Amino acid sequence: MEGVDYLAAERKKAEFDVEEMKIVWAGSRHAFEVSDRISKLVANDPAFRKDERTMLPRKELFKNTLRKATYAWKRINELRLSEEEASKLRFYVDEPSFTDLHWGMFVPAIKGQGTDEQQRKWLPLAYKMQIIGCYAQTELGHGSNVQGLETTATFDPQTDEFVIHSPTLTSSKWWPGGLGKVSTHGLVYARLITDGQEHGIHGFIVQLRSLEDHKPLPGITIGDIGMKFGNGAYNTMDNGVLRFDHVRIPRDQMLMRVSRVTREGKVVESDVPRQLVYGTMVFVRQTIVQDASCALSRAVCIATRYSAVRRQFGSQNGGPETQVIDYKTQQSRLFPLLASAYAFRFVGEWLNWLYMDVMRRLQANEFSTLPEVHACTAGLKSLTTSVTADGIEECRKLCGGHGYLCTSGLPELFAVYVPACTYEGDNIVLQLQVARILMKTVSQLSSGKPPVGTMAYLGRIEPLMQYRCNVQKAKDWMNPNVVLEAFEARAARMSVSCAQKLSKFSNPEEGFAELSADLVEASVAHCQLIVVSKFIEKLQQDIPGKRVKQQLEVLCGIYSLALLHKHQGDFLATSCVTSKQASLANDQLRELYTQVRPNAIALVDAFNYTDHFLGSILGRYDGNVYPKLYEAAWKDPLNESVVPDGYHQYIRPLLKQQLRAAKL
Amino acid sequence: MEGVDYLAAERKKAEFDVEEMKIVWAGSRHAFEVSDRISKLVANDPAFRKDERTMLPRKELFKNTLRKATYAWKRINELRLSEEEASKLRFYVDEPSFTDLHWGMFVPAIKGQGTDEQQRKWLPLAYKMQIIGCYAQTELGHGSNVQGLETTATFDPQTDEFVIHSPTLTSSKWWPGGLGKVSTHGLVYARLITDGQEHGIHGFIVQLRSLEDHKPLPGITIGDIGMKFGNGAYNTMDNGVLRFDHVRIPRDQMLMRVSRVTREGKVVESDVPRQLVYGTMVFVRQTIVQDASCALSRAVCIATRYSAVRRQFGSQNGGPETQVIDYKTQQSRLFPLLASAYAFRFVGEWLNWLYMDVMRRLQANEFSTLPEVHACTAGLKSLTTSVTADGIEECRKLCGGHGYLCTSGLPELFAVYVPACTYEGDNIVLQLQVARILMKTVSQLSSGKPPVGTMAYLGRIEPLMQYRCNVQKAKDWMNPNVVLEAFEARAARMSVSCAQKLSKFSNPEEGFAELSADLVEASVAHCQLIVVSKFIEKLQQDIPGKRVKQQLEVLCGIYSLALLHKHQGDFLATSCVTSKQASLANDQLRELYTQVRPNAIALVDAFNYTDHFLGSILGRYDGNVYPKLYEAAWKDPLNESVVPDGYHQYIRPLLKQQLRAAKL
Ligand SMILES: Cc1cc2nc3c(=O)[nH]c(=O)nc-3n(C[C@H](O)[C@H](O)[C@H](O)COP(=O)(O)OP(=O)(O)OC[C@H]3O[C@@H](n4cnc5c(N)ncnc54)[C@H](O)[C@@H]3O)c2cc1C
Ligand SMILES: Cc1cc2nc3c(=O)[nH]c(=O)nc-3n(C[C@H](O)[C@H](O)[C@H](O)COP(=O)(O)OP(=O)(O)OC[C@H]3O[C@@H](n4cnc5c(N)ncnc54)[C@H](O)[C@@H]3O)c2cc1C
Repeated sequence: MEGVDYLAAERKKAEFDVEEMKIVWAGSRHAFEVSDRISKLVANDPAFRKDERTMLPRKELFKNTLRKATYAWKRINELRLSEEEASKLRFYVDEPSFTDLHWGMFVPAIKGQGTDEQQRKWLPLAYKMQIIGCYAQTELGHGSNVQGLETTATFDPQTDEFVIHSPTLTSSKWWPGGLGKVSTHGLVYARLITDGQEHGIHGFIVQLRSLEDHKPLPGITIGDIGMKFGNGAYNTMDNGVLRFDHVRIPRDQMLMRVSRVTREGKVVESDVPRQLVYGTMVFVRQTIVQDASCALSRAVCIATRYSAVRRQFGSQNGGPETQVIDYKTQQSRLFPLLASAYAFRFVGEWLNWLYMDVMRRLQANEFSTLPEVHACTAGLKSLTTSVTADGIEECRKLCGGHGYLCTSGLPELFAVYVPACTYEGDNIVLQLQVARILMKTVSQLSSGKPPVGTMAYLGRIEPLMQYRCNVQKAKDWMNPNVVLEAFEARAARMSVSCAQKLSKFSNPEEGFAELSADLVEASVAHCQLIVVSKFIEKLQQDIPGKRVKQQLEVLCGIYSLALLHKHQGDFLATSCVTSKQASLANDQLRELYTQVRPNAIALVDAFNYTDHFLGSILGRYDGNVYPKLYEAAWKDPLNESVVPDGYHQYIRPLLKQQLRAAKL
Repeated sequence: MEGVDYLAAERKKAEFDVEEMKIVWAGSRHAFEVSDRISKLVANDPAFRKDERTMLPRKELFKNTLRKATYAWKRINELRLSEEEASKLRFYVDEPSFTDLHWGMFVPAIKGQGTDEQQRKWLPLAYKMQIIGCYAQTELGHGSNVQGLETTATFDPQTDEFVIHSPTLTSSKWWPGGLGKVSTHGLVYARLITDGQEHGIHGFIVQLRSLEDHKPLPGITIGDIGMKFGNGAYNTMDNGVLRFDHVRIPRDQMLMRVSRVTREGKVVESDVPRQLVYGTMVFVRQTIVQDASCALSRAVCIATRYSAVRRQFGSQNGGPETQVIDYKTQQSRLFPLLASAYAFRFVGEWLNWLYMDVMRRLQANEFSTLPEVHACTAGLKSLTTSVTADGIEECRKLCGGHGYLCTSGLPELFAVYVPACTYEGDNIVLQLQVARILMKTVSQLSSGKPPVGTMAYLGRIEPLMQYRCNVQKAKDWMNPNVVLEAFEARAARMSVSCAQKLSKFSNPEEGFAELSADLVEASVAHCQLIVVSKFIEKLQQDIPGKRVKQQLEVLCGIYSLALLHKHQGDFLATSCVTSKQASLANDQLRELYTQVRPNAIALVDAFNYTDHFLGSILGRYDGNVYPKLYEAAWKDPLNESVVPDGYHQYIRPLLKQQLRAAKL
């Protein structure tokens, strides 16, 4: 029945003020109001329909995305949306497109790496979308190793130009989003050569297509790199391939804020500190962590609601069967992900603060905290995207067979999300960077230089090495200090143990390579500690609303104790906890699952996602799953005819044993 | 360059006889010969091309599958292939289709559950594909809980017929493969009702479509349930929805081998033991475990070859960069999966033996081992499919950005494989069944009834509870007995610990529910032990070929020590090993990675997969990755025109600021 809320009984069970939790989730009353308004605007506009997306062949899919992106821009202008509102609108349209790279990479890079003059020239064009830009760094042969890029930009002093060239097949640009079919300009990263000398990798603004007829300019070959993982998903994006055959651009199209090339072809460093790039980096990674909490919460919302609708087994005396959300195995898979979604939300909020802090420090020429900031954002990007990708897939499995249908929304969410583990830094490569800084920090502990920021705990290395957990009963694990200390001790001891093993190698680089798998584990432990500690810090704030804080305390407990259980091996191997204490943590965890159970639906309602945004029949707000699944099935193109295309050619000759003559 | 083997240097490094390893992998010289011949037959026939699969819209994709399936059947007949060869051919065609369910479920179910008379009637039709059958069990509302199915089969004594009916929306059959568009007949599971009495779930052969025009018969509504996860992938299959409106079938179309309905409507049990179903079950699950080793080995083959081609960082003095396969982090993610592929192969081989053994016992009316066999096959299905699904995705990530392209073959492999975690029993539901039998076995230990089969080790519970690992140096971990004992002790202690906790509950069912997450962990530990022990048993056989056995010993070491490391928490919490010993295991593991490294390419060559079957540019035998990736990109439909469809309507008005008038 339409209009009935099949989850009403679940909603009544909630013990806390959902409306207040929505504010907490959004970050502020203002943020909630904007999100709420814009998401509904998108949901109510049929032009933004997306339920047919997984059935469209590539060309139609792509054209449809062009339409939506253009229409979104039109609406943004008509409604005179603020920058905040416009970016929310793009977010709720929920379809990867060239605008992501234009606004998310091209514009910020010009802001960060362009001189004032360059910004004055290019930004107004970009802001009005009179040009569309992409970020062309990765090549067929090089991604992670940016210093290995092969594209060359050779300065020609005769004409005062750079010659952009792709000397090899592997130097073809490969992957940039928006490049394949749309961008008029690219921010191209290339090896700067002047006077026969190499000067490392720099960014160049290169016009790629004619502004009149959209054809690639002379010397430029561009195309789309082809289908990617999943139906719909990232195939709405034209990730592209690009080759240059001696393409000339004026000298002033090299981004010259940090170093510039003079008329004579000399490379001159400017007095702007190189560390400025850190600002952009923290900004981008903060966005990625926010996105992680968003993608994970979406998947969790779907799986939680469906788990309350789905019943299987356990009917007694003809009564209804058990809701699968009541099975402890289901809870032990689902609730830690629910808690992680909240945890990532809060660590994302903190990263936002960190970004402002870094900008303030940069302005004050204060660079000492930057390596730690770098490590922390790299590590959190890696941790949150990995957990989110795996978490979405787990949510899909939690929905049983029906999770495998595109109408569940989960396959597409997974496919579209999972490259976040690879782009903006491969997750393993990033953890190795964190590990490097951790090892450096540990090795300098005796130097008297106290570690800062998220590494400050390493300054208390002696008590942490001596630490013994004094948990005696399950409830003791609800004390945040107890949890924090255990996580600090575990992370510190894993780092110290790696450092000790490293010191036995005569060649430290060899040692680092040999022990890299262990180093990644130490680095993950450090990052998990950051998330736990930021969750705990959040709970020290004043949080209004009936029992809102209590719910968050339960979630914080679930987040940390589920981690403790999962990584029991670390905690036991470093003697941070005894096996008895680990077992008590597990008992407490089960108790927390019971506490969160009646609030589960309300906790995902607090994300305030529209059915449009969720894009999932299983996750419908009203729980009216079965009739809608049934209805949706008939829309598949295969159902256009009862007897399928191919019956006369293939099935009938097969059944009638007339294959010898059949043309196949 | 065509014809150059870019991996030749890698192949030269191999220290063992690859040709002999191929025989070991295939299971026998005969099996190798058949596989080799049939896989090449498929690969060399352009009718079986599959590289365009991820670009086809659903209807074309499906029609193309009909063509291939029919053509395959034609070839099978023309070449007079044996049953073994025919099934290999279908396997190498590598495309889910109605024939999977016809041969894999419909035919075996009639064999297992039909009377001799029914078999004589239906099997010849099915063998010649004069009828095409599907397996229609799952409904919209019920999957795991088969006893909850709602479809009814009511006996009408007046006409000597059953009336098959779908009383509710949720009773619609939902998921059966081959049902949506192709099958002429379905094996429909329904609630038997005679004389107003319910008699549980039984199977009925129901004709669904006219054999003349393929239209659904009166009272029958059928369709496809729509798009599923991934491009190409399982969308070649017509998983269907089916509703019955009082459809009548003759009484003799109920499968009556075990119980039958008489002319008068009485339900009579036959003297055939019910346990016979176990035979089919072991058979089907054995296939699934074989499939797991196959899917995992495919992914590992792709990731291993590409990891040897891909270079990133570490160039010294202008020399080539490091092959990413040389990074220890890459090795620690890849090599345990390589080892798992071999481990699953051998446990699959053993399951094949177990199947014969069970059939022998059934014939001798010997049923005592069946619960253990049931547990063991359920657990191994669950374990191997879960590891394989995760492993394929890990292999995809190991390929960095390029793994996200469909041309890598990995997205489709993942999407097509992953439902194996759900069908034939949800993996968690299965582990809970194992746990139940484990708990029963533990509780009966004092009764003097010795546990059998894979649970026999529990008969040595006392020494296992007293066991202390005596590893003193890393090398000690290469002793198979040491490894086996540690795994036995861990599994036994986890089971015993669960049993002890259970005994504290006054209501055992409540206890089981409350502790179910822990029980699943105990059950997984038990299943891992089975795989480890079967790998070790395999190594006790005579294995010819230069250093073939040694390689397998290295892989066995990697398999078990990587598990030990991953589940360190279990081993430490149960005091099976000390943290020092766990750390030594980890040292030994790193050493084994170094040993396997030069043999890695040869070890995946031993799978003997053709490039056609692999379906991956990254996994090409010759390693000629980059030119082929580049070439393939241009085949995407988006590249049919340089300026994309939609430019004039959308992009140009956007760039030219002419949106106000634009129709969007
Ligand atoms: C959907 C998508 C969108 C993208 N969009 C853009 C874009 O707009 N613009 C752009 O320029 N690029 C883009 N990229 C490219 C992306 O940035 C790269 O794919 C990413 O940087 C990873 O690099 P790679 O592909 O070279 O991986 P590789 O580095 O080749 O990784 C392969 C394997 O090697 C391992 N490895 C590599 N180096 C080391 C090391 N030193 N130590 C240990 N292990 C190592 C990795 O862990 C991984 O397992 C996009 C990619 C994707 C998938
Ligand atoms: C690709 C594909 C092909 C298929 N082909 C066929 C076919 O040919 N014929 C056919 O009849 N069916 C087919 N199926 C259906 C398949 O067999 C079912 O999807 C499967 O049995 C799982 O059942 P479910 O979907 O009801 O999951 P559910 O049981 O609803 O699972 C949902 C969640 O509940 C949990 N859960 C359920 N019961 C319990 C419990 N007692 N304790 C703890 N947790 C529990 C599960 O672990 C899961 O997390 C197919 C499915 C797929 C995806």
